Amino acid sequence: MEILITNDDGIYAEGIYALATALKKLGNVTVVAPDTQRSAVGHAITITDPLRVVPANRNGKFFGYAASGTPADCVKLGIKAIMNKRPDLVVSGINLGGNLGYNILYSGTVSGATEGALLGIPSIAISLNTFVKPDFAAAAAFAVKLAAGMKKRRLPPGTLLNVNLPNIPRAKIKGVRITNQSRTSFNDWFDKRTDPHGQTYYWMTGDFIPKDKDSASDLNAVNAGYISVTPIQFDLTDFKFIPELENWNL
Amino acid sequence: MEILITNDDGIYAEGIYALATALKKLGNVTVVAPDTQRSAVGHAITITDPLRVVPANRNGKFFGYAASGTPADCVKLGIKAIMNKRPDLVVSGINLGGNLGYNILYSGTVSGATEGALLGIPSIAISLNTFVKPDFAAAAAFAVKLAAGMKKRRLPPGTLLNVNLPNIPRAKIKGVRITNQSRTSFNDWFDKRTDPHGQTYYWMTGDFIPKDKDSASDLNAVNAGYISVTPIQFDLTDFKFIPELENWNL
Repeated sequence: MEILITNDDGIYAEGIYALATALKKLGNVTVVAPDTQRSAVGHAITITDPLRVVPANRNGKFFGYAASGTPADCVKLGIKAIMNKRPDLVVSGINLGGNLGYNILYSGTVSGATEGALLGIPSIAISLNTFVKPDFAAAAAFAVKLAAGMKKRRLPPGTLLNVNLPNIPRAKIKGVRITNQSRTSFNDWFDKRTDPHGQTYYWMTGDFIPKDKDSASDLNAVNAGYISVTPIQFDLTDFKFIPELENWNL
Repeated sequence: MEILITNDDGIYAEGIYALATALKKLGNVTVVAPDTQRSAVGHAITITDPLRVVPANRNGKFFGYAASGTPADCVKLGIKAIMNKRPDLVVSGINLGGNLGYNILYSGTVSGATEGALLGIPSIAISLNTFVKPDFAAAAAFAVKLAAGMKKRRLPPGTLLNVNLPNIPRAKIKGVRITNQSRTSFNDWFDKRTDPHGQTYYWMTGDFIPKDKDSASDLNAVNAGYISVTPIQFDLTDFKFIPELENWNL
């Protein structure tokens, strides 16, 4: 199995190391990841600057390719410029922080997997729902299980899997739930400050994603101690609203 | 009517000036837009850097606020930090270049309108399908018509309108089609080069979006000389695939 791995926390993050190490059991792993943290870049690509790619070592050994771009850039580069064979699977993660609800729109992690799906390759995004004291063991093990299963299973064209895990020991995870995307998002605002030169600037900040009432949501599964697996796709058309919009007689 | 305007070509672009000037007929217009071009930023937000906002003049008069962020940042800033009243409408554009098919995932223009919709405000993205010799007159006039109509009409929560126009004179436009997102995208690859210091770098480049066979698509409407209006939404869940995924017994 040829596997392409990326993330948005950068090639030196702990989560991508755990993921790549675990997936090596299944085949050839190629890591192409941003040279620095690229969180909240959405599905950005780099068209106005050239992209640089350099080899990156970890623990004194070659680990992968560090690129001066976004996760979507990395997946494009991996498939179209770096790998000799087309990958069988793209895995993006393991992200430090959940990618749940509408927050997946801002997610570089999900964007990496989305790019894989757009290029016709089965793709998975995987995230750990914590920012402190992460334990990547359960997520890495689940990534291996899911990736191994993908050999004999088929995702619809354009559909990928968005996986989130609670940050609890593997033995305490209650199971796996197939979920839908929660209709909640980060509640954010701006912290307005004045710099030493008297000029105003703003920091975006916010609260954690709130609870929601949808028992089938990604958010509720993770909060209840389950692994959440959400199939997502990128035809954004609101087909249900088309008949009403036709009546607007534009 | 309180209207917030943004774009991704930057506050000094021609398209946003045409849009803001036209929409002033309908009420108070506040422009908050990136201080430089931010194309293909996807739904990025800026969390690792502070955001700066400065007044920007055009033709010697105050035009709006130039922000050091993405279109989504600009909409958040407009609503949460700059405007005294909550806007009734967010309009993003007029973009130089179509936002059609899967390419809308990379679009800063669509992302600005998406952020408005996520914050519960009726929102429109509007783009002109050309990169050369743009004539923004028809798009500006259609934006006024659509915005005026929004006073008495209601979009479903979380749904926004993605509008694209062909670059032809207003009199030659054949009409308006309500469309779905085409399942095609830009065909891109990397141009590999060597810099004067012997180092490799890559430029992302690509072909225009191909034709597609879907007669109801945004792409085909614009290519046939119609204004395309696509309702889009951001619950990405692939509900149809959930029953099969349940059978994977993860």
